[in-house]
Amino acid sequence: MHILDTVKTLAEILLAKDWKMAAAESCTGGIVCASLTELAGSSEWFERGYITYSNQAKEECLGVPSTLIESHGAVSEQVAKAMAEGALSHSGANTAIAITGTAGPTGGSKNKPIGTVCFGWAIQNDAGENRVLTKTVFFNGDRQSIREQARLYILSEFAKLLED
Amino acid sequence: MHILDTVKTLAEILLAKDWKMAAAESCTGGIVCASLTELAGSSEWFERGYITYSNQAKEECLGVPSTLIESHGAVSEQVAKAMAEGALSHSGANTAIAITGTAGPTGGSKNKPIGTVCFGWAIQNDAGENRVLTKTVFFNGDRQSIREQARLYILSEFAKLLED
Repeated sequence: MHILDTVKTLAEILLAKDWKMAAAESCTGGIVCASLTELAGSSEWFERGYITYSNQAKEECLGVPSTLIESHGAVSEQVAKAMAEGALSHSGANTAIAITGTAGPTGGSKNKPIGTVCFGWAIQNDAGENRVLTKTVFFNGDRQSIREQARLYILSEFAKLLED
Repeated sequence: MHILDTVKTLAEILLAKDWKMAAAESCTGGIVCASLTELAGSSEWFERGYITYSNQAKEECLGVPSTLIESHGAVSEQVAKAMAEGALSHSGANTAIAITGTAGPTGGSKNKPIGTVCFGWAIQNDAGENRVLTKTVFFNGDRQSIREQARLYILSEFAKLLED
């Protein structure tokens, strides 16, 4: 499935709910926001994105505690969760997604090899209740392929979650 | 010239200066950050990006005064300047770029037809002095083409400015 088809599906779901979304990206570095905004009319459901490449950006833009990054590493579900929650609360959007991972070609470790990507999805329903889900996936491939696989994964899972 | 060649040139200049950059994007919606971070090792010189698609995001993330947006419109050199200055000061990077425009297919006006893109470049030299430049360019083409032309323009002009 082409990424733009996934974006179209997402757009329909968000528009039907009258919801807006925000995105926080680290390793994908903007390709998720770029795909979301490729669709004409995306301003109706896309509120903003945070490309928090550095740890300082994760802390300052999204309120991720530095202690969390020190304890678990920037590539962790704990940090993905905090990024998604921070993007949700800072943007005022109804829902937010977050990605942090190692796209390589350097930077991997034994426990977190290159291709390790942690995802977060935060959804605030119309009653104001928050739900946050996280997941870690190991992707194969080069830097660009890992980034693209992560993009497709987070958006297609997001569409499923919103349809639930 | 392929966009990644321009990014490589930029990376070399920034690394030689030991500088980091930030980016604030509206109409390009993340494609500038995506291209910057396509290059391996970009975390050495790319600090963060702000995809401030909504006016509220421009105000909250970058400190663009709402009065400025009301007076001049979101697509204006005044707002591009404030976005670049905000990205510079909020990120702590040495230099920042900003884009705001109308990529279409709807949303143009007589004075600001579809394809109108305003750019800002903010540079703080090692003595702490700030220089900000702005420019408006009218691009032809469809939404994706306008976004891609804007991306190439801002990055190639940025490389020239940094080399001055």
